[in-house]
Amino acid sequence: MEDIVVGQQFRSASIQVTAEEIKRFAQQFDPQPFHLDEIAAKSTFFGGLAASGWHTAALTMRLLVESGMPLAGGIIGAGGDISWPQATRPADVLHVESEIITLAPSRSRPDRGMLQVRSQTINQSGEVVQILNAKLMVWSKSSKA
Amino acid sequence: MEDIVVGQQFRSASIQVTAEEIKRFAQQFDPQPFHLDEIAAKSTFFGGLAASGWHTAALTMRLLVESGMPLAGGIIGAGGDISWPQATRPADVLHVESEIITLAPSRSRPDRGMLQVRSQTINQSGEVVQILNAKLMVWSKSSKA
Repeated sequence: MEDIVVGQQFRSASIQVTAEEIKRFAQQFDPQPFHLDEIAAKSTFFGGLAASGWHTAALTMRLLVESGMPLAGGIIGAGGDISWPQATRPADVLHVESEIITLAPSRSRPDRGMLQVRSQTINQSGEVVQILNAKLMVWSKSSKA
Repeated sequence: MEDIVVGQQFRSASIQVTAEEIKRFAQQFDPQPFHLDEIAAKSTFFGGLAASGWHTAALTMRLLVESGMPLAGGIIGAGGDISWPQATRPADVLHVESEIITLAPSRSRPDRGMLQVRSQTINQSGEVVQILNAKLMVWSKSSKA
């Protein structure tokens, strides 16, 4: 918590998404035609295979955990708001840019605080595929998460 | 879109989550100790193995798609807000209860509309593990999603 400053920015590494991964995620968690099959997807709103928004969210989390935001106690979210301005597509290369919006130490428990972080997930063309405003719990270094 | 009424409620089937699935999801998308390993999780905030919130979200989506909400054009979300009042734990049995909050037909495109749906994901003890207020796009039956 001590190292975090409002306005601080982080940029994650990148990850490429394959059509195979999009379909595998969809089979498990979001089995709809536009996430499962290129041909079936053509005649839908998406006009072609598109990743589930929850797949984009899960990939964003992986990027945040592995390279996106160095928080002492881990990245533990209470919730937030999320939007998907566009879909993630096969072969997209995503990275995440985050900014600390607010940091509020807890009044009752001085070793804890609540962080608001805005994370944009961006593809290789600079298009935003997800905006996540997350509320995260943070701890001081001396305490255990 | 024609069959949807504000106040309408839906209840999904149930699904059981295993420790194995919690760890597999975490390895792929949220590799933090409290999602990966029972022993390591004990000394963390969660006090034991807990599912990633994004795993709870993905399972919720599966329940909605398979049995939760019969929408003609599929369940296509523009975004929403999400919170996790508690974590999903190994062996939890989850189901989703949804309610239509608002339905607003598009002014410019009469074959489309925007739906607000509140979906609570509930475990076997009746505890809410996720609240999702989602904005969904809907189509009239005669048009193609």
